[in-house]
Amino acid sequence: MTAAAPQRAAEAWSGLAAGNPVMTTVDTLLRGVGQVMFQNNPLTGLIFLAGIFVNSGKLGGFGLLGLAASTLTAYLLGADRALIRNGLFGFNGILVGIGLAFFLNYNGLLIGYVILGGALSTVAMMGLANLFSVWDLPALTAPFVLTAWLLLFAVLLFANLRPNALIVVAPPDTRVLPETALREAATGAGAIGLTPVNMTNALFRGIGEVMFQDKLATGVIFLFAIFVNSRISALFALLGSALGALTAWTVGANGVAVFHGLYGFNAVLCAIALGGVFFVLTWRSAIYALVAALISALVFAAISTFLAPIGMPALTAPFVLVTWIFLLAKAGFKALVPVGLADVTTAEAHLEGYRTGRIGPEAPSPDQPRRPASDAPKAVP
Amino acid sequence: MTAAAPQRAAEAWSGLAAGNPVMTTVDTLLRGVGQVMFQNNPLTGLIFLAGIFVNSGKLGGFGLLGLAASTLTAYLLGADRALIRNGLFGFNGILVGIGLAFFLNYNGLLIGYVILGGALSTVAMMGLANLFSVWDLPALTAPFVLTAWLLLFAVLLFANLRPNALIVVAPPDTRVLPETALREAATGAGAIGLTPVNMTNALFRGIGEVMFQDKLATGVIFLFAIFVNSRISALFALLGSALGALTAWTVGANGVAVFHGLYGFNAVLCAIALGGVFFVLTWRSAIYALVAALISALVFAAISTFLAPIGMPALTAPFVLVTWIFLLAKAGFKALVPVGLADVTTAEAHLEGYRTGRIGPEAPSPDQPRRPASDAPKAVP
Amino acid sequence: MTAAAPQRAAEAWSGLAAGNPVMTTVDTLLRGVGQVMFQNNPLTGLIFLAGIFVNSGKLGGFGLLGLAASTLTAYLLGADRALIRNGLFGFNGILVGIGLAFFLNYNGLLIGYVILGGALSTVAMMGLANLFSVWDLPALTAPFVLTAWLLLFAVLLFANLRPNALIVVAPPDTRVLPETALREAATGAGAIGLTPVNMTNALFRGIGEVMFQDKLATGVIFLFAIFVNSRISALFALLGSALGALTAWTVGANGVAVFHGLYGFNAVLCAIALGGVFFVLTWRSAIYALVAALISALVFAAISTFLAPIGMPALTAPFVLVTWIFLLAKAGFKALVPVGLADVTTAEAHLEGYRTGRIGPEAPSPDQPRRPASDAPKAVP
Repeated sequence: MTAAAPQRAAEAWSGLAAGNPVMTTVDTLLRGVGQVMFQNNPLTGLIFLAGIFVNSGKLGGFGLLGLAASTLTAYLLGADRALIRNGLFGFNGILVGIGLAFFLNYNGLLIGYVILGGALSTVAMMGLANLFSVWDLPALTAPFVLTAWLLLFAVLLFANLRPNALIVVAPPDTRVLPETALREAATGAGAIGLTPVNMTNALFRGIGEVMFQDKLATGVIFLFAIFVNSRISALFALLGSALGALTAWTVGANGVAVFHGLYGFNAVLCAIALGGVFFVLTWRSAIYALVAALISALVFAAISTFLAPIGMPALTAPFVLVTWIFLLAKAGFKALVPVGLADVTTAEAHLEGYRTGRIGPEAPSPDQPRRPASDAPKAVP
Repeated sequence: MTAAAPQRAAEAWSGLAAGNPVMTTVDTLLRGVGQVMFQNNPLTGLIFLAGIFVNSGKLGGFGLLGLAASTLTAYLLGADRALIRNGLFGFNGILVGIGLAFFLNYNGLLIGYVILGGALSTVAMMGLANLFSVWDLPALTAPFVLTAWLLLFAVLLFANLRPNALIVVAPPDTRVLPETALREAATGAGAIGLTPVNMTNALFRGIGEVMFQDKLATGVIFLFAIFVNSRISALFALLGSALGALTAWTVGANGVAVFHGLYGFNAVLCAIALGGVFFVLTWRSAIYALVAALISALVFAAISTFLAPIGMPALTAPFVLVTWIFLLAKAGFKALVPVGLADVTTAEAHLEGYRTGRIGPEAPSPDQPRRPASDAPKAVP
Repeated sequence: MTAAAPQRAAEAWSGLAAGNPVMTTVDTLLRGVGQVMFQNNPLTGLIFLAGIFVNSGKLGGFGLLGLAASTLTAYLLGADRALIRNGLFGFNGILVGIGLAFFLNYNGLLIGYVILGGALSTVAMMGLANLFSVWDLPALTAPFVLTAWLLLFAVLLFANLRPNALIVVAPPDTRVLPETALREAATGAGAIGLTPVNMTNALFRGIGEVMFQDKLATGVIFLFAIFVNSRISALFALLGSALGALTAWTVGANGVAVFHGLYGFNAVLCAIALGGVFFVLTWRSAIYALVAALISALVFAAISTFLAPIGMPALTAPFVLVTWIFLLAKAGFKALVPVGLADVTTAEAHLEGYRTGRIGPEAPSPDQPRRPASDAPKAVP
């Protein structure tokens, strides 16, 4: 189950990162990018960045700004160094940076807004981590959702920070049926319906949209980035995206939204999180994760409806809400084997730990002291 | 304080239920129905079902489907058997089934939607039970509200699952005064105003609407079903419904809504829950419960206003919110005698326990081990 | 750092208050008024009241009604006497009373509505205090916000309790730019723009609006009232108001709203709370508090947008939300020195305690018993 060459490269990099402050910083930031999809691996983060810049230099630049602001804030406020090193104060920051730049018009003020958002995401991350430590529950991307919602809702009342055309105030109308035909939005080009091309687009754009990247190639690159760190997570990213699109198609969601991956990205995150990361991968947890992914596609529609009167986007709130519910239940369902936050590494390592008895009901936790619970404090080599 | 014949019948039934897997399942499901109004009694559940089917076979059928789906999910995921046997994974499921069928047009997809909703309600129930175990706070019908809201909000974006005429998107308008005259909606028949007939309708439909049953006879049957298990709970159901309607009439709420019990059903649940179930019944807790019931009628209007821009129903969210607030305060108010979740049975048994010193400040809890807190794990004979 | 004459007068008053039930009650109620801005001082409360009555006898009268109702409810339900004596069941009540009278037309029913609101605010206060005791987190003005929102949302459906002209249902419109010129609303008199007069108005009305008092003189009186108890808190009130207005002006918020202090009052509360009250005042916590104040001005716009489709006001929800986030993070940020809720007195006393080692990382808390956590149970002399 070793990942061979990429794994060895990662280890060589780790040695490099440990000895040099600049390299340490770069490693920290790249892990922050990787953590957007639960991959504590600088190489994954680097390939994620490549995928973003392939699509949009502007979004990539603002993402890096948010990433730097959130990570720097954590340092300045004296957050735990191990948590910072694992990128846990970076992934919300990069999402805030990309998200604000995605929905707002560019001007000078936006730069300050993104820096402020990055800083706020770090305070929110620490706040939610403390709040949820009672249940050993991860904050997930809730700090990003909270920060981005607050800063996006606000601009509707501001003259100097303006939403772009993606923000459309449109209260729901029960008399209007959505157009379900699968097709591309902007160009109108290409065949309409369940063609292989359209289905491939929905599948990979669903992975790309996790970071607001509406591009097939970026989705492919993101999948490869995950694969470098965890084959299981890559598989569940694919399954999640497919299931999200399929669910949306079945209930008759807007075909353009399905084509562009909007019903997929929350399902991708649910599937990765529950399919091996926070539960040991078994047949039962696999089904549990995929049902959650399916439900997240419905919840995407629910939260979109809820926010339609103010024209605001659901972001990854469907993923956060569904995954919290499915994780909170863990202590009561004997059919599942949860992984404590302090033990989270990769889906493959959890499987190995389960086989050797380090993780699961046979684990030696009762009479041995354990590290305090916090968001995934995996040791950095 | 023994309930005589019905109680003896229930005991005979318990013996039957214990020995036979089919009977055990039936007993489990019926207790789930009874738990909708905090009555852990299969006979109460059976009479509730009769009351539903008298009004609508369709709603009854979908209710049973949700009930079965939620209970089966709890078994498959390995939930605690005692909790399942007490119907604690059933009451949200039946409400989800009835609620979705009440607001959505029928088609084949609705069957799958209800099954999924029942399953989700069980995961949400376990999640909320774990979340609230920190404060020994019950989940109440929050799993139903959460599940039904998410699945109902979503359909406004789906072509293959459609809301019926009961879902009306209508943003609030401060210039329009509600019509306060008490009267029936559909037919327009009958006298208008505070007539005995109209007041009787409001009173009993308020009890029926707890399970979406807008029929006087069903309200009477529900009241009898509660009475079979607890005279105190039946009394508070009546008082709650009366107080909810009276409050709404006083502030000038829509008279059609009052006639059809819409201002009563949350007050019914508040009054039962706080009037003897989660607090020992005393004069002070009775007043506390009735004030909560009164407030729940106001909160019904508040949540209805909040959801008006997307046309969605308040469901039992007013009950859940008000009861949580009034229960969370329990540790700080010496004038009230709370009943621990692990000790919840019937209002009558709590009174008896208080008199004999088993429940209340004199109870021997400090130095004796207690069962872990969870939603009402009353032992099933 | 002693406050000299005012402090001595306060101590003389304390002796008087201790010996006489009427005086004790008056002292209790005045402390409740002072606690609106975290000042547990009856003289501050008295001057606050003077500031309110200078502006509006009606608002003052309803404020006193809510204050009395909430405090009496706490007595009747058997809440902890020390908490009551410190005014912790009063500050939400007075805000509910003023808030309901501010947004609703006067009629006889309003009196009952305010009494009910005061009572509900006390139950909510106790509920939230118990809920948050897990994290040693204060309820702040959340009981007021929750109570006032529920009772205000509701009236849109009631014929006998009507909103006044301040409640305007106006869904957001992305095509309309706000008018940013700083100016007075009603009269239209006076110069427009960044004039000293307009800036002074924004500054002091921001302090007055904490209690819905849209008057420059009231803001000055409020500031003096705070100064009597804590020079640090008075300074941060000023800084918060200035920063809130400045932030709003920078992003281009509505100039009339800025003039009337609507972007200031949440920032005032954030700055006081985080600038010396819940953290020991250091350069780092000062910056932390001011960043929170700045963010609260943005969050005011966010929550206003969110509630625009139902025309409802943000109240102090921005302050509550931002301060909770910034306080929840405290356990994880080593750069800050939190003050435990049981130790909260004045910003000056915290500084002194920090210097003498009573508060902070060197404090003798680990092996000494401490009082149970609750909202600021400062001993009353």
